[in-house]
Amino acid sequence: MTKEEILSRVDHTLLKQGSTWQQIKVILDEAMEAHTASACIPPYFVKKAKEYVGDRLPICTVIGFPNGNMTTATKVYETKDAVANGADEIDMVINIGMLKEADYDGLLNEINEIKAACDGKLLKVIIETCLLTDDEKIEMCKIVTKSDADFIKTSTGFSEGGATFADIKLMKENVGADLKIKAAGGISSVADAEKFIELGADRLGTSRLIALLK
Amino acid sequence: MTKEEILSRVDHTLLKQGSTWQQIKVILDEAMEAHTASACIPPYFVKKAKEYVGDRLPICTVIGFPNGNMTTATKVYETKDAVANGADEIDMVINIGMLKEADYDGLLNEINEIKAACDGKLLKVIIETCLLTDDEKIEMCKIVTKSDADFIKTSTGFSEGGATFADIKLMKENVGADLKIKAAGGISSVADAEKFIELGADRLGTSRLIALLK
Repeated sequence: MTKEEILSRVDHTLLKQGSTWQQIKVILDEAMEAHTASACIPPYFVKKAKEYVGDRLPICTVIGFPNGNMTTATKVYETKDAVANGADEIDMVINIGMLKEADYDGLLNEINEIKAACDGKLLKVIIETCLLTDDEKIEMCKIVTKSDADFIKTSTGFSEGGATFADIKLMKENVGADLKIKAAGGISSVADAEKFIELGADRLGTSRLIALLK
Repeated sequence: MTKEEILSRVDHTLLKQGSTWQQIKVILDEAMEAHTASACIPPYFVKKAKEYVGDRLPICTVIGFPNGNMTTATKVYETKDAVANGADEIDMVINIGMLKEADYDGLLNEINEIKAACDGKLLKVIIETCLLTDDEKIEMCKIVTKSDADFIKTSTGFSEGGATFADIKLMKENVGADLKIKAAGGISSVADAEKFIELGADRLGTSRLIALLK
């Protein structure tokens, strides 16, 4: 796989709690230079980032992040606000409590309400694999496949673990043909990145890959 | 200090990412039995919790939690939504990036916009001490004192550290007479709880204290 092929699948990511505009600007510059799929940044910076990059780079942001246990109304508002500020891609976190309580209709409705608020923009659904049993992961593959979302995504990077090869394999076996997969959290080598892509990941959420490929 | 005096200062807390209603209900029952100041739970559960406890217990929830780098518009919406659902107390997280960029007006405006959305309910401002220098902590003491908020609070419990004795001492020395202090994160013994109160904490955010006092 060429360096360019890998980079074209990367969401170059900085979501740290205390990030400043100076740090975000570095991420945007690196992402534009490396021609990544997007830069993934906190909602607070979306407007300024869009003004800075214009049409040169898609801006991805996060909704209900990272805990996911906000109300659906707040997540929908946050999505509309992000899209109005110029976000091109939306990575939402599911309500894991809903999943633990087997409220599958609630999960599906929330995803579809947020997708409706996306106004045609790409929606990725973070299921936080490290907190789920395999049965719960498979249930989420079914729900996200049935939903209007575009991607299923492994991890926030803020919980107990990130993407694993086993999880990408499991997801690939259990999602519909049209649902794409994003591996995120802890991707720490070029070899791992290639392996995630081979196993079926269409996107990689990572802060380290550009530096590693240099 | 009597057990009752300590408990009357406790926000009995469960904010974990995958919390279920069954787990939240236990927290509410324990808080009502122990007569704590409040139960502090994620926004998703506020409406159901308020219906469950009625007037027997104040319900506290969290806004922009735990990363704080949402837009002000989203934090204000989330506050209005929480108050409409029955929240009695609001614990917001500041935008730490704003502080690192010395955007003190932005911080003050955000706090006051959220307080206006509180509709008279109590507002606590989480500054996430573990990520700040002492100078930044002192700056936040000044800003929150100048604001309309009711409390300054040390920590989310989701970052690199929780409340320390040194931070409560520093805050007590630098806040105005009317601003109260909440210590939160990692309070793990009754002796520690008493020490935090002696140093000037009016509230303690903790999940463990009820069990320890039993």
